Amino acid sequence: MKLLEEKIIHDGKVFEGNILKVDSFVNHQIDVKFMNEIGKEFKRLFDGEEITKILTIEASGIGIACIVAQYFDVPVLFAKKTKSVNIAGDVYTSKVESFTHKRTYDIIVSKEFLHENDKVLIIDDFLAQGSALCGLIKLIKDAKAEVVGAGIVIEKAYQEGGQLVRDMGVRVESLARIKSMGVDGSIEFIN
Amino acid sequence: MKLLEEKIIHDGKVFEGNILKVDSFVNHQIDVKFMNEIGKEFKRLFDGEEITKILTIEASGIGIACIVAQYFDVPVLFAKKTKSVNIAGDVYTSKVESFTHKRTYDIIVSKEFLHENDKVLIIDDFLAQGSALCGLIKLIKDAKAEVVGAGIVIEKAYQEGGQLVRDMGVRVESLARIKSMGVDGSIEFIN
Repeated sequence: MKLLEEKIIHDGKVFEGNILKVDSFVNHQIDVKFMNEIGKEFKRLFDGEEITKILTIEASGIGIACIVAQYFDVPVLFAKKTKSVNIAGDVYTSKVESFTHKRTYDIIVSKEFLHENDKVLIIDDFLAQGSALCGLIKLIKDAKAEVVGAGIVIEKAYQEGGQLVRDMGVRVESLARIKSMGVDGSIEFIN
Repeated sequence: MKLLEEKIIHDGKVFEGNILKVDSFVNHQIDVKFMNEIGKEFKRLFDGEEITKILTIEASGIGIACIVAQYFDVPVLFAKKTKSVNIAGDVYTSKVESFTHKRTYDIIVSKEFLHENDKVLIIDDFLAQGSALCGLIKLIKDAKAEVVGAGIVIEKAYQEGGQLVRDMGVRVESLARIKSMGVDGSIEFIN
């Protein structure tokens, strides 16, 4: 998505340690008008697919998912992060490793909101190592629901997550795929 | 807002310890179509006010704020929760006490995204003791920006937060104001 690539180059900031900050329009401040363009693009990509629910993960994913959901006319369900699962058996859980924050946490969704007949589109801001995405896929599979695909805003395509999930047979559509980036601010995309 | 009161009565669940769960359309699953009705209502209430930014707090607030922001055509900024502030002096911070989770945490917003000339509408899902709302107001005041008001989805009007914030001279508009609720599921509203 050309518009997104331009925005990442213009507003994104690259830091030491493989960090891309897009705080001005995705992860802290949210450019809601721009997110509508993201929503339209995901709708174009997944048009014709039967989708009953959008699944994302707190926190940054929620805003994007809500805007995107308007184009599919379905509710959003967001997985919650918890430090330890001590809730009764009424939730699906999986483990997610955060490489940025160097810790592992559990994510949960209530069984009440994810059913066998759900056809789920996952929406998230970033895909890098793929741990969060694999965790979300596990939740859907545990519920015996169908994974329609994953719509990702920014994929760090030089990391293994995208390949890993595509190799699982899951359709992944990333709107910007970063090939490489440098602390001088240079960012190259895969077309 | 009659529609919201009906939805709370229909879908909300009251638990021991003054807990109202609206997980089916606000706090876990988000009914995006319904949130658009919420957005229209806040637009009606704050119409004519100059607003440059919507401020909320992660996580549940983000989805609501993004949908509402579309009616005001402004970006959303969400305060992040952190356990301890060890970030450089480029953020505004305040302390928030969570009565539900019985802990205190810091919230931060980057100075980059909150400026002296901003006119800020706060949007949040719940108002009870008012700690989160007071924390958000402090962030705005620290930035020397203007607090236009606070749009709250559900106010527990029998708790002191609403009065506390209104006494500070801040305009608070709550779409449903709960007068009392019981574990039998009964919920009374203030009209």
